Amino acid sequence: MLKKIKILMPDPVKFKFVKEGLEYYLKRIEPFVLVDTIFPKIKTKVSNVSIKLKKEEEAIKKYILDKDYLIVLDEKGKAFKSIELAERLKKLIQNYTYITFIIGGPDGLSENLKKQAKEIWSLSPLTLNHEIALLVFIEALYRSFTIIKGIPYHRE
Amino acid sequence: MLKKIKILMPDPVKFKFVKEGLEYYLKRIEPFVLVDTIFPKIKTKVSNVSIKLKKEEEAIKKYILDKDYLIVLDEKGKAFKSIELAERLKKLIQNYTYITFIIGGPDGLSENLKKQAKEIWSLSPLTLNHEIALLVFIEALYRSFTIIKGIPYHRE
Repeated sequence: MLKKIKILMPDPVKFKFVKEGLEYYLKRIEPFVLVDTIFPKIKTKVSNVSIKLKKEEEAIKKYILDKDYLIVLDEKGKAFKSIELAERLKKLIQNYTYITFIIGGPDGLSENLKKQAKEIWSLSPLTLNHEIALLVFIEALYRSFTIIKGIPYHRE
Repeated sequence: MLKKIKILMPDPVKFKFVKEGLEYYLKRIEPFVLVDTIFPKIKTKVSNVSIKLKKEEEAIKKYILDKDYLIVLDEKGKAFKSIELAERLKKLIQNYTYITFIIGGPDGLSENLKKQAKEIWSLSPLTLNHEIALLVFIEALYRSFTIIKGIPYHRE
């Protein structure tokens, strides 16, 4: 039975509007499950993308525990309708205690992290700004819980 | 050659964070094209969904002109990768002067409006909160223009 959902994304959220939207949905989800959002900061500025992804991978890995069921969000992952996402999540909730989602930074995620994941989910075939992707995901998570619990979706 | 993009969505945006995000991306798009966002207000509160959609349709139709090339955004529409979206948009820009996008409200859009559209595009197979969909779309529009114009995508 699920105890905690963790969302990992490299670097703190920069857009104020994304922070606000995230807070709004985290509050909405609060009655259903404990959600931790962790944004490991990459201190060194690196221009080489593969070195940057490696550094982000290292920073993120510090927050991944052996017991975590790992799911990566990537545009090339499995696509879901909302009802399908809720069904998949419902199964996972019954079978796992800790579910951890990873969202890539502006340059995506290292292949290593993707390989380590049990599942790869896609929010859209479009490339989304990773902070917008975080917003889309947290809203989808909230919507999933309203479907799973059979309660109305709050719109304001 | 494109002169204006219009985005129509029933009812003014409620989420402050969506308003802020929208403003941010509208400013980013400004150098490329004139974008009008119009949120026709539905005054009467209607609980019956089909009557509500009919009223929203009437309110939206007031802003659709004969010259507009009409595109509806709907989860069941055609899906695009970012590069495909940019390519499609590039063609439309060359061939049409006025492109008008319609995003449904919380209950979607009337079948009538969908039938009237020349194309239906999907941002995600997931049902998105319509205000979040607006944000995703405006970011996708900005990204498309950076691809079409071959200029860097601004991240902050």
